[in-house]
Amino acid sequence: MKGFAILACLVSGACWAQSPADFQPATTNVWGAEYPRVDRLGSVQIRIKAPDATKVRLNFWSGPKVDLAKQADGFWIATVGPLVPGLHYYTVIVDGAEVSDPSSQAFFGGGKYASAVEVPEAGSTYYLPGDVPHGQVREVWYHSKVTASWRHALVYLPSDYDQSSRTRYPVLYLQHGAGEDETGWIRQGHANFILDNLIAAHQAKPMIMVMAYGYARRAGAPPVDFMGKPLGSPEALVAMQDMASVFEADMTQALIPFIDTTFRTLPDRDHRAMAGLSMGGMQTFQVTFNHLDLFSYIGGFSGASSFVLGDRKFDPKTDLHGALADPKVFASKVHLLWLGVGTTEPERIRGGLLRLHASFDAAGIKHVFYESPGTDHEWQTWRRDLRDFVPRLF
Amino acid sequence: MKGFAILACLVSGACWAQSPADFQPATTNVWGAEYPRVDRLGSVQIRIKAPDATKVRLNFWSGPKVDLAKQADGFWIATVGPLVPGLHYYTVIVDGAEVSDPSSQAFFGGGKYASAVEVPEAGSTYYLPGDVPHGQVREVWYHSKVTASWRHALVYLPSDYDQSSRTRYPVLYLQHGAGEDETGWIRQGHANFILDNLIAAHQAKPMIMVMAYGYARRAGAPPVDFMGKPLGSPEALVAMQDMASVFEADMTQALIPFIDTTFRTLPDRDHRAMAGLSMGGMQTFQVTFNHLDLFSYIGGFSGASSFVLGDRKFDPKTDLHGALADPKVFASKVHLLWLGVGTTEPERIRGGLLRLHASFDAAGIKHVFYESPGTDHEWQTWRRDLRDFVPRLF
Repeated sequence: MKGFAILACLVSGACWAQSPADFQPATTNVWGAEYPRVDRLGSVQIRIKAPDATKVRLNFWSGPKVDLAKQADGFWIATVGPLVPGLHYYTVIVDGAEVSDPSSQAFFGGGKYASAVEVPEAGSTYYLPGDVPHGQVREVWYHSKVTASWRHALVYLPSDYDQSSRTRYPVLYLQHGAGEDETGWIRQGHANFILDNLIAAHQAKPMIMVMAYGYARRAGAPPVDFMGKPLGSPEALVAMQDMASVFEADMTQALIPFIDTTFRTLPDRDHRAMAGLSMGGMQTFQVTFNHLDLFSYIGGFSGASSFVLGDRKFDPKTDLHGALADPKVFASKVHLLWLGVGTTEPERIRGGLLRLHASFDAAGIKHVFYESPGTDHEWQTWRRDLRDFVPRLF
Repeated sequence: MKGFAILACLVSGACWAQSPADFQPATTNVWGAEYPRVDRLGSVQIRIKAPDATKVRLNFWSGPKVDLAKQADGFWIATVGPLVPGLHYYTVIVDGAEVSDPSSQAFFGGGKYASAVEVPEAGSTYYLPGDVPHGQVREVWYHSKVTASWRHALVYLPSDYDQSSRTRYPVLYLQHGAGEDETGWIRQGHANFILDNLIAAHQAKPMIMVMAYGYARRAGAPPVDFMGKPLGSPEALVAMQDMASVFEADMTQALIPFIDTTFRTLPDRDHRAMAGLSMGGMQTFQVTFNHLDLFSYIGGFSGASSFVLGDRKFDPKTDLHGALADPKVFASKVHLLWLGVGTTEPERIRGGLLRLHASFDAAGIKHVFYESPGTDHEWQTWRRDLRDFVPRLF
């Protein structure tokens, strides 16, 4: 809600008059679609065809629901904003059916293919395709004995990977959030362009980046319906942790060996990092602190250990296997411990990260704490996180 | 319509009783979604939550629209089929709003992210991930002076590409249909698995496969709204051809040079093929016959030259620059001319392909004509096309 600042003026009158010539189709639209449209200030117009509907609502996930107004031609329309820059998920609710907008590209979020509108950030080009060498993103399939299935992952390779046939690279494992999938960091996050630009500017080392599918269930086990449970509820958290432990097994027993045999990696802990957003941050803490023999760089983007979401205070002496009990020993072993959160994220998440940050400070644990100004539990926060995190690696 | 054979029994009664224990969630569902469900015979159940709607219809694109029945819990449900095996696009129409089903994965088709349900084909594993080496699919970005933009393409590399650092490979350019995009052949078609399996069985040579985004407009030109025109209308055809000529320029001036400098290709006409489905078949004929210096293998899957859709009879003496005027000269130059169509495709398309096939026969033009039994203008036809086409290459 905060940071979203909806002016929620239902079309026809005031909002159109404000800057009528300025609206442009969003870059997140499908080919040829004129709506959604965005103006220079970040106001957004959404239009849906639903001639026989009695009520159509717009549901921006980081803002309030807004009624659309019916026009004579069977289209429903609303103008919201200005919205903060970034990619904003939304759905439309047509007579009670929550669906995506056919004019928008579909992005996997919230456990389904949702719509999203990109509001440009004036002057920010770090996540756009620049006139620099572009790394490729490879789709790979690896077989996992843990899940007894073929699993799909995306792998970013720096642009010089194919030119230098002997060079070996460090690896960043980067995880999506709950309800998203392995495509999120590329399609929503533009992580490949962020790395392209940082590497071209010599602000980051060339590296391999692996984005895996963060859901896993053991062969023969029933599906885990963690998305069906109330987000943030104890039941959802337990289900998420159960799944994270299967993912941990898949990652350490199947994915990492596959990556290290398939690509020219530097296959040791000094050259292996893991980070993730939201649920992916939780998974990162679980995987890395259970396997400090494998990782030496750790990042939590709007998510860290599961106790971030609980009331319990972090205890460095016992939590995370006591790895943080001696800050000097920890700092000599783990090269980077990084936390980030947006300043307008929900209190439940922001409070948890702030408390963890304070606990780390109080215990003298070396870490980086980054706050993304004005952004919510959304992709603009995580793009900025990645931009800050990656230059500190390797 | 033909080949779809809808039993269209609206739930609750007869259909459920028929084989109630047999329904399984479709492989095309999002994680954890129990609907759509498919039974062994290919019957499909679709369920949508729309508590306040007054009418919900199901629109399988290769079949009739079917009303869903409202249940007490706010869900609407219908059972259709049995459907022929393959991937069937569909949308749902909620009080006049045509939208995708949140329980299905989204596949780009019809100019939007549509839903689809996969009906397995008993005994067919050629398009499934097998226990064989898997080629990678790379996402690449190339800059095009034709469009003055960064363009995205997918590139399949055979599984041994990285092991044999000197081997060079032939290249198949494979295009999607109108309303689809460069992701279609992988996500809907499983083209990578088809090649993996054929190559592992030594039925096809290891090759590179390039799937490009088939829409293009010249830098500064207005967008071409070919999807807004009635499909198959003269206006749509003209718009499609205009766009194809820009795509032709992009492909020959930007894409092919990019591929040949980026990957270890055999960069000559003897080792370069092009095929495409529907609109992609039309583009294939346009590009290859304008550039026989670049291509020697040509495939039209449910689409070929634009006159397939018109009434005009093909004239080998003058059409396609007269390249087919002398069948012997043509056969010595072009190693493969391949046409395919499903037996239950709409008359407009099927008739056109049959007429072209007859014209080729009458003129003594060597070619392959393949008919996919029982399948419509849908992906199962094109998967079979690819399986027949690829072993004949290189």
